[in-house]
Amino acid sequence: MHEEREVVVLRYGHRPGRDDRMTTHVGLTARALGADRVVFPDNAGQSAETVRDITDRFGGPFAVELRGDQKAIVRDWAGVVVHLTMYGERVQDVEDEVRSAVNADDEDLLVVVGGEKVPWALYERADFNVGVTNQPHSEVAGLAVFLDRLFEGDELEREWTDADRRVVPEATGKTVVDAGDDVGDESGDAADESAD
Amino acid sequence: MHEEREVVVLRYGHRPGRDDRMTTHVGLTARALGADRVVFPDNAGQSAETVRDITDRFGGPFAVELRGDQKAIVRDWAGVVVHLTMYGERVQDVEDEVRSAVNADDEDLLVVVGGEKVPWALYERADFNVGVTNQPHSEVAGLAVFLDRLFEGDELEREWTDADRRVVPEATGKTVVDAGDDVGDESGDAADESAD
Repeated sequence: MHEEREVVVLRYGHRPGRDDRMTTHVGLTARALGADRVVFPDNAGQSAETVRDITDRFGGPFAVELRGDQKAIVRDWAGVVVHLTMYGERVQDVEDEVRSAVNADDEDLLVVVGGEKVPWALYERADFNVGVTNQPHSEVAGLAVFLDRLFEGDELEREWTDADRRVVPEATGKTVVDAGDDVGDESGDAADESAD
Repeated sequence: MHEEREVVVLRYGHRPGRDDRMTTHVGLTARALGADRVVFPDNAGQSAETVRDITDRFGGPFAVELRGDQKAIVRDWAGVVVHLTMYGERVQDVEDEVRSAVNADDEDLLVVVGGEKVPWALYERADFNVGVTNQPHSEVAGLAVFLDRLFEGDELEREWTDADRRVVPEATGKTVVDAGDDVGDESGDAADESAD
Protein backbone atom coordinates (compact mmCIF):
# COMPACT_ATOMS: atom_id res chain seq x y z
CA MET A 1 0.00 0.00 0.00
CA HIS A 2 2.03 2.91 -1.34
CA GLU A 3 5.25 1.40 -0.17
CA GLU A 4 8.05 0.39 -2.46
CA ARG A 5 6.23 -2.71 -3.51
CA GLU A 6 3.01 -2.53 -5.42
CA VAL A 7 -0.26 -4.38 -4.79
CA VAL A 8 -2.22 -4.85 -8.02
CA VAL A 9 -5.67 -6.37 -8.43
CA LEU A 10 -6.34 -8.12 -11.73
CA ARG A 11 -9.94 -8.69 -12.74
CA TYR A 12 -9.80 -11.83 -14.83
CA GLY A 13 -12.54 -11.92 -17.45
CA HIS A 14 -15.42 -9.51 -17.99
CA ARG A 15 -18.71 -9.79 -19.84
CA PRO A 16 -19.80 -6.30 -20.93
CA GLY A 17 -23.27 -5.46 -19.68
CA ARG A 18 -23.68 -8.41 -17.37
CA ASP A 19 -20.49 -7.85 -15.36
CA ASP A 20 -20.27 -4.05 -15.42
CA ARG A 21 -21.33 -3.47 -11.86
CA MET A 22 -19.34 -6.35 -10.39
CA THR A 23 -16.21 -5.24 -12.23
CA THR A 24 -16.74 -1.64 -11.10
CA HIS A 25 -17.15 -2.84 -7.52
CA VAL A 26 -13.95 -4.91 -7.77
CA GLY A 27 -12.12 -1.76 -8.87
CA LEU A 28 -13.62 0.51 -6.21
CA THR A 29 -12.98 -2.07 -3.51
CA ALA A 30 -9.36 -2.43 -4.63
CA ARG A 31 -8.98 1.36 -4.40
CA ALA A 32 -10.78 1.82 -1.07
CA LEU A 33 -8.99 -1.07 0.62
CA GLY A 34 -5.40 -0.28 -0.15
CA ALA A 35 -4.39 -1.67 -3.55
CA ASP A 36 -2.27 0.61 -5.73
CA ARG A 37 -3.72 -0.33 -9.08
CA VAL A 38 -6.45 -2.34 -10.75
CA VAL A 39 -6.20 -3.99 -14.17
CA PHE A 40 -9.41 -4.67 -16.08
CA PRO A 41 -9.85 -6.57 -19.35
CA ASP A 42 -9.93 -4.16 -22.28
CA ASN A 43 -13.65 -4.65 -22.80
CA ALA A 44 -14.40 -3.14 -19.38
CA GLY A 45 -13.99 0.49 -20.41
CA GLN A 46 -17.16 1.62 -18.71
CA SER A 47 -16.07 0.24 -15.35
CA ALA A 48 -12.64 1.83 -15.78
CA GLU A 49 -14.27 5.19 -16.38
CA THR A 50 -16.34 4.95 -13.21
CA VAL A 51 -13.35 4.02 -11.07
CA ARG A 52 -11.25 6.84 -12.56
CA ASP A 53 -14.06 9.31 -11.93
CA ILE A 54 -14.28 8.29 -8.27
CA THR A 55 -10.50 8.59 -7.97
CA ASP A 56 -10.60 12.09 -9.48
CA ARG A 57 -13.19 13.17 -6.96
CA PHE A 58 -12.17 11.28 -3.82
CA GLY A 59 -8.42 11.06 -4.33
CA GLY A 60 -5.59 8.68 -4.93
CA PRO A 61 -3.03 7.65 -5.75
CA PHE A 62 -4.78 4.82 -7.55
CA ALA A 63 -4.34 3.69 -11.14
CA VAL A 64 -6.78 1.95 -13.48
CA GLU A 65 -5.52 0.08 -16.51
CA LEU A 66 -7.25 -1.67 -19.39
CA ARG A 67 -5.24 -4.57 -20.79
CA GLY A 68 -5.97 -7.29 -23.31
CA ASP A 69 -3.31 -9.71 -22.16
CA GLN A 70 -4.61 -11.10 -18.86
CA LYS A 71 -2.89 -14.45 -19.37
CA ALA A 72 0.48 -12.84 -20.06
CA ILE A 73 0.19 -10.52 -17.06
CA VAL A 74 -0.23 -13.49 -14.76
CA ARG A 75 2.39 -15.63 -16.48
CA ASP A 76 5.04 -12.93 -16.53
CA TRP A 77 4.40 -11.37 -13.12
CA ALA A 78 7.76 -10.98 -11.39
CA GLY A 79 6.43 -11.04 -7.82
CA VAL A 80 3.89 -13.06 -5.86
CA VAL A 81 0.59 -14.17 -7.42
CA VAL A 82 -2.47 -14.80 -5.23
CA HIS A 83 -5.57 -16.22 -6.90
CA LEU A 84 -8.78 -15.83 -4.91
CA THR A 85 -10.96 -18.92 -5.39
CA MET A 86 -13.42 -20.90 -3.29
CA TYR A 87 -11.30 -23.99 -4.02
CA GLY A 88 -8.15 -22.54 -2.47
CA GLU A 89 -6.46 -22.86 0.90
CA ARG A 90 -8.22 -21.16 3.77
CA VAL A 91 -7.28 -17.49 4.05
CA GLN A 92 -6.83 -17.80 7.82
CA ASP A 93 -4.27 -20.59 7.24
CA VAL A 94 -2.14 -18.86 4.60
CA GLU A 95 -2.43 -15.13 5.18
CA ASP A 96 0.76 -14.98 7.28
CA GLU A 97 2.65 -16.88 4.63
CA VAL A 98 1.41 -14.56 1.88
CA ARG A 99 2.40 -11.53 3.91
CA SER A 100 5.85 -12.97 4.57
CA ALA A 101 6.38 -13.80 0.91
CA VAL A 102 5.52 -10.24 -0.07
CA ASN A 103 7.39 -8.49 2.72
CA ALA A 104 10.50 -10.66 2.84
CA ASP A 105 11.79 -9.65 -0.57
CA ASP A 106 9.70 -6.53 -1.02
CA GLU A 107 7.89 -8.36 -3.79
CA ASP A 108 5.07 -6.88 -5.81
CA LEU A 109 1.78 -8.70 -5.29
CA LEU A 110 -0.78 -9.56 -7.95
CA VAL A 111 -4.22 -10.47 -6.59
CA VAL A 112 -6.29 -12.22 -9.26
CA VAL A 113 -10.08 -12.03 -8.98
CA GLY A 114 -11.91 -14.37 -11.31
CA GLY A 115 -14.85 -13.27 -13.39
CA GLU A 116 -15.70 -15.74 -16.12
CA LYS A 117 -14.19 -19.18 -15.79
CA VAL A 118 -10.47 -18.89 -15.25
CA PRO A 119 -8.05 -21.23 -17.02
CA TRP A 120 -6.48 -24.10 -15.14
CA ALA A 121 -3.06 -22.57 -15.85
CA LEU A 122 -3.93 -19.79 -13.40
CA TYR A 123 -4.35 -22.29 -10.56
CA GLU A 124 -0.95 -23.71 -11.44
CA ARG A 125 0.84 -20.41 -11.87
CA ALA A 126 -0.53 -18.87 -8.66
CA ASP A 127 1.84 -18.96 -5.71
CA PHE A 128 -1.25 -19.13 -3.52
CA ASN A 129 -4.79 -20.16 -4.36
CA VAL A 130 -6.73 -18.64 -1.48
CA GLY A 131 -10.31 -19.16 -0.36
CA VAL A 132 -12.10 -16.59 1.76
CA THR A 133 -14.29 -19.42 2.98
CA ASN A 134 -14.75 -22.41 0.68
CA GLN A 135 -18.31 -21.33 0.03
CA PRO A 136 -19.75 -19.71 -3.08
CA HIS A 137 -20.37 -16.04 -2.40
CA SER A 138 -18.93 -12.94 -4.05
CA GLU A 139 -15.60 -12.05 -5.61
CA VAL A 140 -16.04 -8.54 -4.22
CA ALA A 141 -16.51 -9.85 -0.67
CA GLY A 142 -13.54 -12.18 -1.03
CA LEU A 143 -11.30 -9.39 -2.27
CA ALA A 144 -12.40 -7.08 0.55
CA VAL A 145 -11.69 -9.56 3.33
CA PHE A 146 -8.41 -10.61 1.74
CA LEU A 147 -7.11 -7.02 1.48
CA ASP A 148 -8.24 -6.12 5.01
CA ARG A 149 -6.36 -9.15 6.34
CA LEU A 150 -3.31 -8.64 4.11
CA PHE A 151 -2.87 -5.07 5.34
CA GLU A 152 -4.02 -5.95 8.87
CA GLY A 153 -6.39 -2.99 8.89
CA ASP A 154 -3.72 -0.40 8.08
CA GLU A 155 -5.49 0.34 4.81
CA LEU A 156 -8.33 1.92 6.78
CA GLU A 157 -5.98 4.64 7.99
CA ARG A 158 -4.65 5.74 4.63
CA GLU A 159 -4.69 9.38 3.58
CA TRP A 160 -5.89 10.42 0.13
CA THR A 161 -4.19 12.99 -2.05
CA ASP A 162 -5.58 15.16 -4.84
CA ALA A 163 -9.15 14.71 -3.68
CA ASP A 164 -11.85 17.26 -4.44
CA ARG A 165 -13.99 16.21 -1.53
CA ARG A 166 -13.92 14.23 1.65
CA VAL A 167 -16.60 12.55 3.75
CA VAL A 168 -16.51 13.40 7.44
CA PRO A 169 -17.22 10.24 9.44
CA GLU A 170 -19.99 10.85 11.96
CA ALA A 171 -22.54 9.11 14.14
CA THR A 172 -25.57 10.54 12.34
CA GLY A 173 -25.13 12.59 9.22
CA LYS A 174 -24.04 12.84 5.62
CA THR A 175 -21.32 15.43 5.61
CA VAL A 176 -19.03 16.04 2.67
CA VAL A 177 -16.47 18.84 2.73
CA ASP A 178 -13.99 20.20 0.23
CA ALA A 179 -10.83 18.20 0.62
CA GLY A 180 -8.55 20.10 2.94
CA ASP A 181 -11.45 21.85 4.66
CA ASP A 182 -12.35 20.91 8.14
CA VAL A 183 -15.58 22.82 8.17
CA GLY A 184 -18.51 23.16 5.83
CA ASP A 185 -21.50 20.90 5.56
CA GLU A 186 -22.94 19.94 2.26
CA SER A 187 -25.25 17.54 3.99
CA GLY A 188 -27.80 16.19 1.61
CA ASP A 189 -25.79 16.91 -1.52
CA ALA A 190 -23.84 13.77 -1.17
CA ALA A 191 -26.40 11.15 -1.99
CA ASP A 192 -25.08 10.93 -5.53
CA GLU A 193 -21.65 9.75 -4.43
CA SER A 194 -22.50 6.13 -4.00
CA ALA A 195 -20.76 3.76 -6.32
CA ASP A 196 -24.09 2.77 -7.64
CA MET B 1 -23.48 -16.67 14.62
CA HIS B 2 -25.69 -19.53 15.63
CA GLU B 3 -25.64 -18.52 19.25
CA GLU B 4 -28.69 -17.48 21.18
CA ARG B 5 -28.71 -14.10 19.57
CA GLU B 6 -29.35 -13.72 15.88
CA VAL B 7 -27.43 -11.69 13.31
CA VAL B 8 -29.69 -10.62 10.46
CA VAL B 9 -28.70 -8.75 7.30
CA LEU B 10 -31.38 -6.52 5.78
CA ARG B 11 -30.97 -5.49 2.15
CA TYR B 12 -32.68 -2.12 1.99
CA GLY B 13 -34.14 -1.44 -1.45
CA HIS B 14 -33.83 -3.46 -4.63
CA ARG B 15 -34.36 -2.63 -8.29
CA PRO B 16 -35.31 -5.83 -10.12
CA GLY B 17 -32.99 -6.52 -13.02
CA ARG B 18 -30.41 -3.88 -12.25
CA ASP B 19 -29.73 -4.99 -8.66
CA ASP B 20 -30.23 -8.75 -8.99
CA ARG B 21 -26.60 -9.71 -8.82
CA MET B 22 -25.66 -7.25 -6.10
CA THR B 23 -28.59 -8.38 -3.96
CA THR B 24 -27.68 -12.03 -4.53
CA HIS B 25 -24.11 -11.29 -3.52
CA VAL B 26 -25.28 -9.51 -0.38
CA GLY B 27 -27.24 -12.64 0.54
CA LEU B 28 -24.45 -15.10 -0.24
CA THR B 29 -21.92 -12.97 1.62
CA ALA B 30 -24.22 -12.80 4.63
CA ARG B 31 -24.49 -16.61 4.56
CA ALA B 32 -20.80 -17.34 3.98
CA LEU B 33 -19.58 -14.87 6.60
CA GLY B 34 -21.66 -15.89 9.57
CA ALA B 35 -25.04 -14.15 9.54
CA ASP B 36 -28.05 -16.30 10.46
CA ARG B 37 -30.57 -14.80 8.08
CA VAL B 38 -30.96 -12.33 5.23
CA VAL B 39 -34.07 -10.28 4.52
CA PHE B 40 -34.65 -9.06 0.97
CA PRO B 41 -37.36 -6.72 -0.31
CA ASP B 42 -40.28 -8.68 -1.70
CA ASN B 43 -39.40 -7.79 -5.29
CA ALA B 44 -36.10 -9.67 -5.02
CA GLY B 45 -37.51 -13.15 -5.47
CA GLN B 46 -34.89 -14.20 -7.98
CA SER B 47 -32.03 -13.39 -5.62
CA ALA B 48 -33.82 -15.22 -2.80
CA GLU B 49 -34.12 -18.30 -4.97
CA THR B 50 -30.40 -18.29 -5.76
CA VAL B 51 -29.38 -17.94 -2.12
CA ARG B 52 -31.77 -20.71 -1.07
CA ASP B 53 -30.42 -22.96 -3.79
CA ILE B 54 -26.83 -22.43 -2.60
CA THR B 55 -27.94 -23.11 0.98
CA ASP B 56 -29.63 -26.35 -0.11
CA ARG B 57 -26.46 -27.52 -1.79
CA PHE B 58 -23.73 -26.18 0.48
CA GLY B 59 -25.50 -26.25 3.82
CA GLY B 60 -26.86 -24.07 6.56
CA PRO B 61 -28.42 -23.17 8.81
CA PHE B 62 -29.24 -19.99 6.93
CA ALA B 63 -32.62 -18.44 6.27
CA VAL B 64 -33.78 -16.19 3.42
CA GLU B 65 -36.87 -14.04 3.81
CA LEU B 66 -38.78 -11.78 1.45
CA ARG B 67 -40.53 -8.90 3.22
CA GLY B 68 -42.36 -5.81 2.04
CA ASP B 69 -42.01 -3.83 5.24
CA GLN B 70 -38.35 -2.78 5.33
CA LYS B 71 -39.12 0.43 7.20
CA ALA B 72 -41.10 -1.37 9.89
CA ILE B 73 -38.42 -4.03 10.35
CA VAL B 74 -35.86 -1.37 11.14
CA ARG B 75 -38.21 0.74 13.26
CA ASP B 76 -39.45 -2.18 15.35
CA TRP B 77 -36.18 -4.12 15.72
CA ALA B 78 -35.81 -5.03 19.39
CA GLY B 79 -32.02 -5.33 19.37
CA VAL B 80 -29.10 -3.37 17.96
CA VAL B 81 -29.28 -1.76 14.50
CA VAL B 82 -26.09 -1.15 12.49
CA HIS B 83 -26.41 0.76 9.22
CA LEU B 84 -23.45 0.42 6.87
CA THR B 85 -22.83 3.71 5.10
CA MET B 86 -19.83 5.62 3.79
CA TYR B 87 -20.97 8.57 5.91
CA GLY B 88 -20.78 6.64 9.17
CA GLU B 89 -18.24 6.36 11.93
CA ARG B 90 -15.09 4.46 11.07
CA VAL B 91 -15.49 0.72 11.56
CA GLN B 92 -12.12 0.47 13.30
CA ASP B 93 -13.31 3.05 15.86
CA VAL B 94 -16.68 1.52 16.70
CA GLU B 95 -16.38 -2.23 16.14
CA ASP B 96 -15.58 -2.95 19.80
CA GLU B 97 -18.54 -0.89 20.91
CA VAL B 98 -20.87 -2.69 18.49
CA ARG B 99 -19.62 -6.05 19.71
CA SER B 100 -20.10 -5.03 23.33
CA ALA B 101 -23.62 -3.76 22.68
CA VAL B 102 -24.55 -7.07 21.08
CA ASN B 103 -22.79 -9.32 23.55
CA ALA B 104 -23.59 -7.46 26.75
CA ASP B 105 -27.31 -8.13 26.65
CA ASP B 106 -27.28 -10.97 24.15
CA GLU B 107 -29.03 -8.64 21.76
CA ASP B 108 -30.04 -9.58 18.24
CA LEU B 109 -28.22 -7.55 15.61
CA LEU B 110 -29.71 -6.11 12.43
CA VAL B 111 -27.13 -5.07 9.82
CA VAL B 112 -28.71 -2.81 7.21
CA VAL B 113 -27.12 -2.68 3.76
CA GLY B 114 -28.41 0.11 1.55
CA GLY B 115 -29.40 -0.43 -2.04
CA GLU B 116 -31.41 2.45 -3.42
CA LYS B 117 -31.34 5.66 -1.43
CA VAL B 118 -32.20 4.96 2.16
CA PRO B 119 -34.48 7.29 4.12
CA TRP B 120 -33.02 9.73 6.62
CA ALA B 121 -35.04 8.00 9.34
CA LEU B 122 -32.71 5.01 8.99
CA TYR B 123 -29.68 7.12 9.92
CA GLU B 124 -31.59 8.34 12.96
CA ARG B 125 -32.91 4.96 14.04
CA ALA B 126 -29.59 3.15 13.67
CA ASP B 127 -27.68 2.62 16.88
CA PHE B 128 -24.54 2.79 14.78
CA ASN B 129 -23.96 4.23 11.33
CA VAL B 130 -20.73 2.54 10.32
CA GLY B 131 -18.38 3.23 7.43
CA VAL B 132 -15.98 0.57 6.17
CA THR B 133 -13.81 3.41 4.92
CA ASN B 134 -15.53 6.71 4.10
CA GLN B 135 -14.96 6.06 0.42
CA PRO B 136 -17.51 5.02 -2.20
CA HIS B 137 -16.98 1.36 -3.03
CA SER B 138 -19.31 -1.61 -2.67
CA GLU B 139 -22.02 -2.59 -0.22
CA VAL B 140 -20.90 -6.20 -0.62
CA ALA B 141 -17.31 -5.34 0.33
CA GLY B 142 -18.48 -3.27 3.28
CA LEU B 143 -20.69 -6.06 4.56
CA ALA B 144 -17.89 -8.62 4.21
CA VAL B 145 -15.32 -6.61 6.15
CA PHE B 146 -17.88 -5.66 8.80
CA LEU B 147 -18.91 -9.29 9.43
CA ASP B 148 -15.31 -10.54 9.47
CA ARG B 149 -14.47 -7.92 12.08
CA LEU B 150 -17.67 -8.40 14.08
CA PHE B 151 -17.01 -12.13 14.44
CA GLU B 152 -13.24 -11.63 14.70
CA GLY B 153 -12.64 -14.32 12.10
CA ASP B 154 -14.59 -17.02 13.97
CA GLU B 155 -17.07 -17.14 11.08
CA LEU B 156 -14.36 -18.72 8.92
CA GLU B 157 -14.34 -21.78 11.17
CA ARG B 158 -18.03 -22.54 11.09
CA GLU B 159 -19.33 -25.99 10.21
CA TRP B 160 -22.20 -26.44 7.78
CA THR B 161 -25.07 -28.83 8.28
CA ASP B 162 -27.38 -30.48 5.75
CA ALA B 163 -24.99 -29.86 2.88
CA ASP B 164 -24.97 -32.01 -0.25
CA ARG B 165 -21.41 -31.16 -1.09
CA ARG B 166 -18.29 -29.65 0.33
CA VAL B 167 -15.23 -28.02 -1.22
CA VAL B 168 -11.92 -29.37 0.01
CA PRO B 169 -9.51 -26.45 0.45
CA GLU B 170 -6.25 -27.13 -1.34
CA ALA B 171 -3.15 -25.46 -2.74
CA THR B 172 -3.89 -26.36 -6.36
CA GLY B 173 -7.11 -28.02 -7.30
CA LYS B 174 -10.87 -27.86 -7.55
CA THR B 175 -12.09 -30.66 -5.36
CA VAL B 176 -15.69 -31.10 -4.31
CA VAL B 177 -16.81 -34.10 -2.28
CA ASP B 178 -20.14 -35.33 -1.01
CA ALA B 179 -20.70 -33.70 2.33
CA GLY B 180 -19.56 -36.09 5.01
CA ASP B 181 -17.10 -37.82 2.69
CA ASP B 182 -13.43 -37.28 3.21
CA VAL B 183 -12.39 -38.84 -0.06
CA GLY B 184 -13.58 -38.63 -3.61
CA ASP B 185 -12.57 -36.10 -6.20
CA GLU B 186 -15.08 -34.62 -8.55
CA SER B 187 -12.44 -32.25 -9.81
CA GLY B 188 -13.67 -30.36 -12.78
CA ASP B 189 -17.35 -30.84 -12.07
CA ALA B 190 -17.39 -27.94 -9.75
CA ALA B 191 -17.05 -25.03 -12.13
CA ASP B 192 -20.78 -24.45 -12.05
CA GLU B 193 -20.82 -23.77 -8.33
CA SER B 194 -19.79 -20.15 -8.52
CA ALA B 195 -22.35 -17.66 -7.38
CA ASP B 196 -22.29 -16.18 -10.80
